[in-house]
Amino acid sequence: MKQITGGVTAAKGFEAAGVEAAVKYKNRKDMAMVYSTVPCKVAGTFTTNVVKAAPVLWDKELVENAPFVQAVVVNSGVANACTGKQGMDICKKEAQCAGELLGIPETAVLVASTGVIGMQLPLDRITAGIEKLVEAKKPGIEAGTEASKAIMTTDTVNKEIAVEFEIAGKTVTMGGMCKGSGMIHPNMCTMLGFITTDVKISKEMLQKALSADVVDSFNMISVDGDTSTNDTLLLMANGLADNEEITCEGKEYDTFCEALHFITIYLARKMAGDGEGATALFEAKVINAATKEDARILAKSVICSSLTKAAIFGHDSNFGRFICALGYSGVQFDPENVDLYYESKSGRMHIYSKGVACDYSEEEASKILADPEVTALFDMHMGDAEATAWGCDLSYDYVKINADYRS
Amino acid sequence: MKQITGGVTAAKGFEAAGVEAAVKYKNRKDMAMVYSTVPCKVAGTFTTNVVKAAPVLWDKELVENAPFVQAVVVNSGVANACTGKQGMDICKKEAQCAGELLGIPETAVLVASTGVIGMQLPLDRITAGIEKLVEAKKPGIEAGTEASKAIMTTDTVNKEIAVEFEIAGKTVTMGGMCKGSGMIHPNMCTMLGFITTDVKISKEMLQKALSADVVDSFNMISVDGDTSTNDTLLLMANGLADNEEITCEGKEYDTFCEALHFITIYLARKMAGDGEGATALFEAKVINAATKEDARILAKSVICSSLTKAAIFGHDSNFGRFICALGYSGVQFDPENVDLYYESKSGRMHIYSKGVACDYSEEEASKILADPEVTALFDMHMGDAEATAWGCDLSYDYVKINADYRS
Repeated sequence: MKQITGGVTAAKGFEAAGVEAAVKYKNRKDMAMVYSTVPCKVAGTFTTNVVKAAPVLWDKELVENAPFVQAVVVNSGVANACTGKQGMDICKKEAQCAGELLGIPETAVLVASTGVIGMQLPLDRITAGIEKLVEAKKPGIEAGTEASKAIMTTDTVNKEIAVEFEIAGKTVTMGGMCKGSGMIHPNMCTMLGFITTDVKISKEMLQKALSADVVDSFNMISVDGDTSTNDTLLLMANGLADNEEITCEGKEYDTFCEALHFITIYLARKMAGDGEGATALFEAKVINAATKEDARILAKSVICSSLTKAAIFGHDSNFGRFICALGYSGVQFDPENVDLYYESKSGRMHIYSKGVACDYSEEEASKILADPEVTALFDMHMGDAEATAWGCDLSYDYVKINADYRS
Repeated sequence: MKQITGGVTAAKGFEAAGVEAAVKYKNRKDMAMVYSTVPCKVAGTFTTNVVKAAPVLWDKELVENAPFVQAVVVNSGVANACTGKQGMDICKKEAQCAGELLGIPETAVLVASTGVIGMQLPLDRITAGIEKLVEAKKPGIEAGTEASKAIMTTDTVNKEIAVEFEIAGKTVTMGGMCKGSGMIHPNMCTMLGFITTDVKISKEMLQKALSADVVDSFNMISVDGDTSTNDTLLLMANGLADNEEITCEGKEYDTFCEALHFITIYLARKMAGDGEGATALFEAKVINAATKEDARILAKSVICSSLTKAAIFGHDSNFGRFICALGYSGVQFDPENVDLYYESKSGRMHIYSKGVACDYSEEEASKILADPEVTALFDMHMGDAEATAWGCDLSYDYVKINADYRS
């Protein structure tokens, strides 16, 4: 497997576009389309929030029941959540509009929205945007990049990646894009993520791969602990790589899963590191835990703590906050038998052992914590399970962004 | 029952002091003592964090097994958490020192600490502080106030209250103090809280009253979602009111519980409203929920959300965040059947109904949210259970305080 340039248009047969539709933002691209020239199989994972946005309900239905899909229409600015029956009608009209223009059934058109909750989408501007998208869509790396920029809200950078790998002698390509960067605490899914591939695979194995993957990728990140109403991750496979279809577990399935995981981890880390107001990617790695689930819970508890996040922002080795966050996670362990290390490009340092602080230099520790990517490594000495979670620091800008996000 | 001036020294036979011991802070009182001239029964609730500070372990043992207690020694600045065996030895030495000077057994001396985790307490300064405290302790309202000031860390105001009530013709007094204001997300208890009363009550009923009380008082507040290693709430009763001893449920027990709840709710609200960096007390009230536990979970989910907290700070009626926080709480409900109202001294407004926004004025809503005490009221239309939770807004100052708390 090798990383290549590109995103959602890297794989054969995928086209994309990003256009200005003035849904809410002005003078920037705010609508995107991903389109496959041939029908795709699709897998999806969605928010576990009881309050589900209309596009989530629309897509869940299609992922479960549509014979195939071929396009996704995305807008930023307005989330189409808490919008009642009118919100569902707009989803249907979006799909109808795109379906007619593309010459595909409305049940082949997925929709996704991100932005402010509680506002209705302006249907006229959305349909005008879809017309522009259908006209603008094209193959090639640049088109994918345009799409990845159009789905940003408070993101500071667009997020895309692509890889190439072999399945039984055939070259397969997979690419993806996603957006953060607030209300990020995915549960069964992430904010908005789209992955395309030309692999030939059964729908069942496609969904199995995605569902298994998110547990250790998107579900292990958090910016602010708020599980969105709109979390949607879609994986579309159009089969143009012409490999022998993957229909069961085995070497080919494993190769596919490995490539998928490379993409999801890349995007998940990007999303965490570009969390609202973030100055650093904050990674918690737990090793030698009793069970995998314990390791996940411990790691996630550390990156979700406001106090550990503020300490990272301040480059302050207030290590008690890290141990405290392990302690209230719900996992049982012996605090006298945990080791904590800080790691970054600037070095590695043993901070806490056998229930007390190690004899370390505060100044050196602060240097390690000042890096743009910081890891807190916890050795639990209980078993051999491990997990990693990704978050970001808590800065003044997080407060600023969210105290007047709508204005 | 009536509220009276005072705190932990309001009840008969209780003395207190607050002194400068330079444990970590300079030029301010940082050690406190509460003392009863006669032996007390004691009840306590403590942190559920797996990582428990040494004083928590010391006090749990005494609350469970000591025949009586008579004094509490408290310091701020250093938490005596993550301090291993040396930390436990220091607790014992604190109790021995105070016990010798007061002429009571060391097993009658409770200890409590709050401040930075991971530093050892300076024993020489602690014992010098205890000598000063024993000399300075005295009855009277002012002594209680001094004690309540000495236990502050990042608190901006001291927190105390007292009430007087009748039990079968005898006047009973109860008073309390507590401190916040970061790492506040009590689970079975609060940061540090001390309540004294001269009621005569059995140990069993005393603990029963306290354990039942915290579920809807201290356990319903949160500043930052971080359950501390040091949470301790102690309730001491010395019997000097000379009422017929309360040994079972009934009218007298109910009267006592009512007074206790008045005190705990007052202190809990004070603690939430004085959360680190807070500009407002943020209350979430859930009514007509299916069960009491559902109501508690829903209310707490709303006040714990970084995004609702930032919206309150910005006086921004971004109501979707409130509904979103209900949605990921884990409680099942129909989003189309929830009503949301904002309430404060500046007015009351219907914001969300039947799955969509009400037709309200953003300007008027912003005025209501600009009050120093703001309530979000949710009517779930499912049953008749209700609960209230208290938090605070998320401000620049929260980040500032916690990015360089130790410096």
